Amino acid sequence: MNGADSLCDTLLANDIDVCFANPGTSEMHFVAALDRKPRMRCVLGLFEGVVTGAADGYARMAGKPAATLLHLGPGLGNGLANLHNAKRARTPMVNVVGDHATYHVQYDAPLTSDVDAVARPMSHWVGRISDAASLSGQAAEAIRVARQAPGNVTTLILPADAAWTDLPADAPAPVVVPQEAPKAPDAQAIRAAAQAIRSGQPAMLLLGGAALQGRALAAAGRIAQATGARLACETSNRRIERGITRTPVPRLPYPVDQAVQFLAEVRQLILIGSRDPVAFFAYPGKVSKLAPKDCNAIQMATPEQDLAHALEWLAEELGIAADAPQLRAPDTNVAEIPVSGKLTSSAINRITAHLLPEHAIVCDESITQGRELAMYNISARPHDWLQLTGGAIGIGLPLAVGASVACPDRKVVTMQADGSGMYTVQALWTQARERLDCLTIVYANRTYATLHGEMKNVGVQQMGENARRMLDLDDPSLDWVHLARGMGVEAVRVDTVEAFTKALQDAFSRKGPYLIEALI
Amino acid sequence: MNGADSLCDTLLANDIDVCFANPGTSEMHFVAALDRKPRMRCVLGLFEGVVTGAADGYARMAGKPAATLLHLGPGLGNGLANLHNAKRARTPMVNVVGDHATYHVQYDAPLTSDVDAVARPMSHWVGRISDAASLSGQAAEAIRVARQAPGNVTTLILPADAAWTDLPADAPAPVVVPQEAPKAPDAQAIRAAAQAIRSGQPAMLLLGGAALQGRALAAAGRIAQATGARLACETSNRRIERGITRTPVPRLPYPVDQAVQFLAEVRQLILIGSRDPVAFFAYPGKVSKLAPKDCNAIQMATPEQDLAHALEWLAEELGIAADAPQLRAPDTNVAEIPVSGKLTSSAINRITAHLLPEHAIVCDESITQGRELAMYNISARPHDWLQLTGGAIGIGLPLAVGASVACPDRKVVTMQADGSGMYTVQALWTQARERLDCLTIVYANRTYATLHGEMKNVGVQQMGENARRMLDLDDPSLDWVHLARGMGVEAVRVDTVEAFTKALQDAFSRKGPYLIEALI
Repeated sequence: MNGADSLCDTLLANDIDVCFANPGTSEMHFVAALDRKPRMRCVLGLFEGVVTGAADGYARMAGKPAATLLHLGPGLGNGLANLHNAKRARTPMVNVVGDHATYHVQYDAPLTSDVDAVARPMSHWVGRISDAASLSGQAAEAIRVARQAPGNVTTLILPADAAWTDLPADAPAPVVVPQEAPKAPDAQAIRAAAQAIRSGQPAMLLLGGAALQGRALAAAGRIAQATGARLACETSNRRIERGITRTPVPRLPYPVDQAVQFLAEVRQLILIGSRDPVAFFAYPGKVSKLAPKDCNAIQMATPEQDLAHALEWLAEELGIAADAPQLRAPDTNVAEIPVSGKLTSSAINRITAHLLPEHAIVCDESITQGRELAMYNISARPHDWLQLTGGAIGIGLPLAVGASVACPDRKVVTMQADGSGMYTVQALWTQARERLDCLTIVYANRTYATLHGEMKNVGVQQMGENARRMLDLDDPSLDWVHLARGMGVEAVRVDTVEAFTKALQDAFSRKGPYLIEALI
Repeated sequence: MNGADSLCDTLLANDIDVCFANPGTSEMHFVAALDRKPRMRCVLGLFEGVVTGAADGYARMAGKPAATLLHLGPGLGNGLANLHNAKRARTPMVNVVGDHATYHVQYDAPLTSDVDAVARPMSHWVGRISDAASLSGQAAEAIRVARQAPGNVTTLILPADAAWTDLPADAPAPVVVPQEAPKAPDAQAIRAAAQAIRSGQPAMLLLGGAALQGRALAAAGRIAQATGARLACETSNRRIERGITRTPVPRLPYPVDQAVQFLAEVRQLILIGSRDPVAFFAYPGKVSKLAPKDCNAIQMATPEQDLAHALEWLAEELGIAADAPQLRAPDTNVAEIPVSGKLTSSAINRITAHLLPEHAIVCDESITQGRELAMYNISARPHDWLQLTGGAIGIGLPLAVGASVACPDRKVVTMQADGSGMYTVQALWTQARERLDCLTIVYANRTYATLHGEMKNVGVQQMGENARRMLDLDDPSLDWVHLARGMGVEAVRVDTVEAFTKALQDAFSRKGPYLIEALI
């Protein structure tokens, strides 16, 4: 038994039994240790962005962290973009990053870099194993912090010699840390929120994080129904329980002007696991803070607090019974489902929402093309909806890997913009390798549509050669059917409503990875 | 004219006229400015590792930096692995990374991160534009540092408001900085090296960086021929001039035991643009420093010094005439060229070296399978050989993009291991988009062969399920023909010597991107 065994045992003793991995030489002792622990499920990604994105998707659905295994500074670097998304989602995650043996660092070998410095910007907590004997306690601390509500990204740097050093036969058992409860809500903040709702001024409950699930969402639905207070959620959320049986919560729009208009009437803005809303980007002459200046913002509960408790308490404070009716999507909101003609993003969104199987998990990296999905999925069968939380594109396909590993019996549907999908396209291979029940729908518009919009925003109406060649993906066109097959995933291309509908029905009647390239 | 225009003008005024780019919203003003400067060649990568690897390949061949354009912390994060390689290669490069408008950072919008902190570990120099008026001077400083011999990776952070702020009509012209000369060699160090060679003890000249090109390499060849001193180069080098007309310089082997044996007889180790050699990784019971303990190491010239001048001076000091003969590859070293049978990595290496066209540029990320290429390419037609300098895999295909943009009239041949190739596979699309004359040869062994060796090194002879599933790529097998076609690159699969030879002859008789998947 060596340090690497001790680390594996500590992860397993704390119920972390999935490791998304892309190891290198400095992690070989850890791989050898994993090989001695068949209880640990090891999932290989062919690129580190797949690994970190998958760990994010796993934890969003499993409600507990996965481990990742990454190789030195550059391997961690490749995983940073999706760590950024996980950090913004407050996803619990324990990254194990190998480093050179402690005595070897001084020689500045070619793969040497400051791993701690690479980790810090995208981690809530960074630790470095000092030696094999202290390893279990240090790993347990990383796990404890990762699991603190609502979740934290922790990065544990593992020098190779700490991994390979033998421990005595009578070394202590792995350190186990209890799951800590989230912080209790604050009575004064709850009363302030209740007063704001009772004030008669237009009030909005802005929900974030865990407020969009289970008891919390149900309580919010009862409050909205009973008081007429508007509900909304942040633009990007780690997990929304969605569909016909759930209270529909509109998303704050992404475009600044629409977001300002969305909030224009609000005078009492009650923040529940969310933050005072700000624009994704700054633009000349536009605001950064989106709520009206004369709007009163109340932080009723922070993401660290027990949001279900907070919302139930608020309902009680407002005199709403536990069995009072929840707000539901109006029946009249059922969208018209197109049956023929040229395929459009709107048709994709409507048909997918209409056919979505119960308990599906939707991984949404549809960017511009899927924005109106929110209008239709409120009347879909009940499902979970996972979003791009940090704006770092390339999360859709990896997120699906992790969600499917966490929930193997549920259909995972990735709504994938083509430009974004290319960043971590290697995730398709892991879907095939692990026989995951993942359907990918690619909105193949062959352009960075977001950036076309943004060019107009900066006043460019007529683009020249340089701009067009940086914003368009049509020369050559990406062929997603070939890309998918190259990684062992069956795929089909469609460009009509009829063919898309049929492909989707096929996909929902089968198991395993599949990809539909939807030309729009 | 705004700050973004000023930055473009400063780049162009300093002869930086290629920009590898993957922009986002915060860089739209810069894109709009590029659109007004058709002299700037903009090359899109569909992933940031493509962008930074291409800038590396470009500068290694062009001898001057390219610019890159990256989007915020996560975009820079995606580019870090190949920035690490560039930093180790001492490649000149000017990265422009967009950030939020200065006044917007305080609101911690979803894509906010500490861009400076992300940049620092893999940059020699990091600067942040303070405002549009100071921009040109600050950009010129980034360019000056990047071009200091032997080259530096500089990262310039561009807040969106610095880019969009208008400058007065009478703003000063862009700041131009002269190319600084490399540092002069040190007379005392040269004399010490000459004395070491004259001592009669076994001496080795260990060449690095610019010592492997042109006048420097020729002088080293004359010294070796005249004195019998051994030549060698570091394991990983940014550019080696190679082939039948050039002095052959053996590479220090990668495996520790072989490297130790390679150096065992050396008593006088003369470092010329190189460092006292160390093991790539530490292993239990093996050394970190590779040279024998009783070997005298002399730093004759650092990478910052004029290595051609240093080696010519050493030759002169040793009384060797400027027209004395250089060491050449022995005629007997011409390898046997297989003509039929099952394809092996050895056959790929021999046949490719044999058929390689004159002035080809070989981008080498062959890892285990191409190690013996060095035995054969000494008798190939004269060519340039670019290597993986920092050990961060995923550089082969992007390096080829940049080399081909720098040298459009030369055939670029990428020797690509399959596992490594997947990290930045998106580079194939840029090869197609730009119609680059790039041939990729994929050694398709469907495994991380390096790691199989390393597992043996850590004492694992019989691998279990977890280890095999982290080291093998055969379930499913990657299909490189489909992957290439998915990105617009023609491709063929071969598994015999006859078919490989024919495919290679075809590839060398045509122009444009092409890929050979060589099953071994």
